[in-house]
Amino acid sequence: MSWENNVRKVIPYVPGEQPTGDVIKLNTNENPYPPSPRVKKVLAEFDIDTLRKYPDVYGGTLQAKLSEVYGIDKDKVFVGVGSDDVLATAFLTFFNSDKPIIFPDVTYSFYDVWADLYNIPYEVIPLKDDFRIDREDYIRDNGGIVIPNPNAPTGALKSVEDLEYIISNNSDSIVIIDEAYIDFGGKSVLPLIDKYDNLLVVQTFSKSRSMAGVRIGMAFGCKALIKYLNDVKFSINSYTINKLTEAAGTAALEDEAYFKETVAKVIATRERVKPILKQLGFDFPDSASNFVFATHDTVPAEEIFTSLKERGIYVRWWNKPRISNHLRISIGADEEMDELINALKEITTR
Amino acid sequence: MSWENNVRKVIPYVPGEQPTGDVIKLNTNENPYPPSPRVKKVLAEFDIDTLRKYPDVYGGTLQAKLSEVYGIDKDKVFVGVGSDDVLATAFLTFFNSDKPIIFPDVTYSFYDVWADLYNIPYEVIPLKDDFRIDREDYIRDNGGIVIPNPNAPTGALKSVEDLEYIISNNSDSIVIIDEAYIDFGGKSVLPLIDKYDNLLVVQTFSKSRSMAGVRIGMAFGCKALIKYLNDVKFSINSYTINKLTEAAGTAALEDEAYFKETVAKVIATRERVKPILKQLGFDFPDSASNFVFATHDTVPAEEIFTSLKERGIYVRWWNKPRISNHLRISIGADEEMDELINALKEITTR
Repeated sequence: MSWENNVRKVIPYVPGEQPTGDVIKLNTNENPYPPSPRVKKVLAEFDIDTLRKYPDVYGGTLQAKLSEVYGIDKDKVFVGVGSDDVLATAFLTFFNSDKPIIFPDVTYSFYDVWADLYNIPYEVIPLKDDFRIDREDYIRDNGGIVIPNPNAPTGALKSVEDLEYIISNNSDSIVIIDEAYIDFGGKSVLPLIDKYDNLLVVQTFSKSRSMAGVRIGMAFGCKALIKYLNDVKFSINSYTINKLTEAAGTAALEDEAYFKETVAKVIATRERVKPILKQLGFDFPDSASNFVFATHDTVPAEEIFTSLKERGIYVRWWNKPRISNHLRISIGADEEMDELINALKEITTR
Repeated sequence: MSWENNVRKVIPYVPGEQPTGDVIKLNTNENPYPPSPRVKKVLAEFDIDTLRKYPDVYGGTLQAKLSEVYGIDKDKVFVGVGSDDVLATAFLTFFNSDKPIIFPDVTYSFYDVWADLYNIPYEVIPLKDDFRIDREDYIRDNGGIVIPNPNAPTGALKSVEDLEYIISNNSDSIVIIDEAYIDFGGKSVLPLIDKYDNLLVVQTFSKSRSMAGVRIGMAFGCKALIKYLNDVKFSINSYTINKLTEAAGTAALEDEAYFKETVAKVIATRERVKPILKQLGFDFPDSASNFVFATHDTVPAEEIFTSLKERGIYVRWWNKPRISNHLRISIGADEEMDELINALKEITTR
C-alpha cells in the first residue's frame, strides 16, 4: 500500500468519553438543562419541503438573529459547526506566518492539534504556578495568539483590561479570544472588536446555550477578518450550517430569558459546590466557567477519576505534565453534584 | 494591518445562486421532490433534551443505517457535512505527494479550489472533444486521482469496467470516485472497495435523497482509508454530524421505497425532456444524472442564460474555457420543465 506514504498522519484530538446509559456525565462541560422549549416547537412545525434546497451560506436567520441579539453588524458575524469548526478555520486562515503562534501550555487541548495539522509553528507559554496567565508573557514576537477566557481546563478568568493590553500590543498579529465559557460569569471582550481590527472573538452554543448536540459556534470580528474567514470557509465547504441547525439556533436565541435562567442555575450550583469541595480537601483556581479544575491534598487525581468512574460518575482527567493531579469536573444539576459530593466523601476519607 | 500579510488568501468556490421567491430554480441540481414524510415525523417527535449533549463522533444511527442499507461494514463508512466536507477532508488526508493529482479539465469546480487551498499540486486532463473521459489518460504518474461519475457538469457516465481499469492501474495512488449523481441511472463502483484498498467512493444526500438542506455526505472505502480519514477529521472537528442531521438522515434511509419512487420520477422527466431539447436545437452528452449540459446550435449560452433569468428561470452558466457556450440545466418537476421548454422555445426562435 504505497499510497500510505502520501497520507497525512496525525495524532488526533481525543474527545471526552460519551458514555450512554445511567451515568452522571460531568466530563465534557455540557449543560445539565435542555435548550429552550422554542427549539421543540420550531422542529415540530418545520417545513421539510425546504430541505431539498441548499441552505444559506452564511447561516441565514441564525446569523441575522446573532447580529440582533449581540448588537453586532451581520458582516461581523461568522457562523460555524461548533466553535471547533470556527477555530480550525481561523487557524488555517490567519496563522500563516513563519513565526510561531503562542498560547498557554495548559489550555484547550485542540490548539496544538490544529497547529500540527496545518503545519503552523507554535510555542506554548507556561501558566504561572497558580495557573494564571501573565499578560506580559504575550508581549513578544509571534505569528498569532490564542487565549481562552476563561481558560480551560483551569476555569480562571482574565480581565478585559489585561486582554486589551495583549490585543493592543500585538497589532501585527491576529489575537483569538476563545470565549467558550464566558457566559458563566466572565466579561466578554466583544465590545473591543470595533476598536481592534486584529481581534477575533469565538463563542459557542455548546455550553451556556445547552446545544452541544446541534453544533453551533460563532466568531465576531471586524468586517475584513470575517470576510477572510468566509473566503477560506467557502473554499472548503460553502454550506456548513444546515437548515435544521439554522432553525433550532434561531429559536434558541429568541428565548434569552430562558438562557439567562439556566445559566444562573449553573452558576448558583457552582457557587454552592465550591466551599463543599474545599471542605473535602480540594483546591482549585476560582472558576468563572461551568467546571472546576481541582486537585486533592491527599488522594491522587487518577485514583479519584477511576473510583468515580466505577460509581458511574464521569469527570475528565488528563495524563499530561503539570495537570496529571487535577480533575476537571463539569457543573451538573444539583442532584448530580450531590451524588458527586457523596462519592467524593467516600473516596477521599477511606 | 500587517497581520494581513499572514492571511491565507484564496479564490473561493462560487456556489450557484440561491434566489428566493417565486422562481424556477434549475441551477444547483436540487431535487424537485421533498424528503420522505418520515423526516417530518422524526423532527416532530424529537426529544430536545438530548441536544444538550455532544453527538456521536461517527454519525451514530446515521452511520449504522448507511452500513445496513448499503450492506457495508460500519468501519468502512465515513459521514460528513455534505460531500464537499467529505471530499475536502479526503484531499487533505490523502493528497500529500509531490506529484500532481489529476482530474478532468471540465469537472466539478471545487476540485482545484481544494487543491489550491491545501497547496496540492494538480494537473487537469482534458476531456475528449465529445466531453468523454478516456481511461488511458489516467494511466500515468500521479499523486492521486479524482473522477466524478457521472461527471459534472457534463452528465456523462463511465462504465464500472473503465473505472476499475483506472483504479487497478493506480495501486500506489488513492482514487476518489465522486458519485454525487450515481443514483440517477449509473452503476456504482461501491462493490470494488473490497477489492481495491486505494478506492474511496463518495456519495451525497443532496441530490437523489432530496436533502441538500441537511448536509450529509458519505465516503466508503477499506478500513484503513476510513481510519485515516477519521483521524484527520478528528483533528479538525470531532463532532460534525449534529443530532438533528443524524435523526433526519436515518429517517430518510428508512424509506427506500420513497427514495426509489422520487428518483424514478426525476429520471422519467429527464428522458421526456431530452428529445424536446434536441428538437429545439440543443445538443448535449447523454445524461445519467439529474441535469443536462446543453449547447444550442444558434443562440449563445450566455444569451439563453440571461433571457431565462429575466423570466425567473435559473440555470447554471460558467464563463470558462471549453464550456462557455453550454448551460447546465437541472431536472426539475414536470411543470417546471414545461415552463422551461416554453421559455426556451421563445428564446431560441425569436
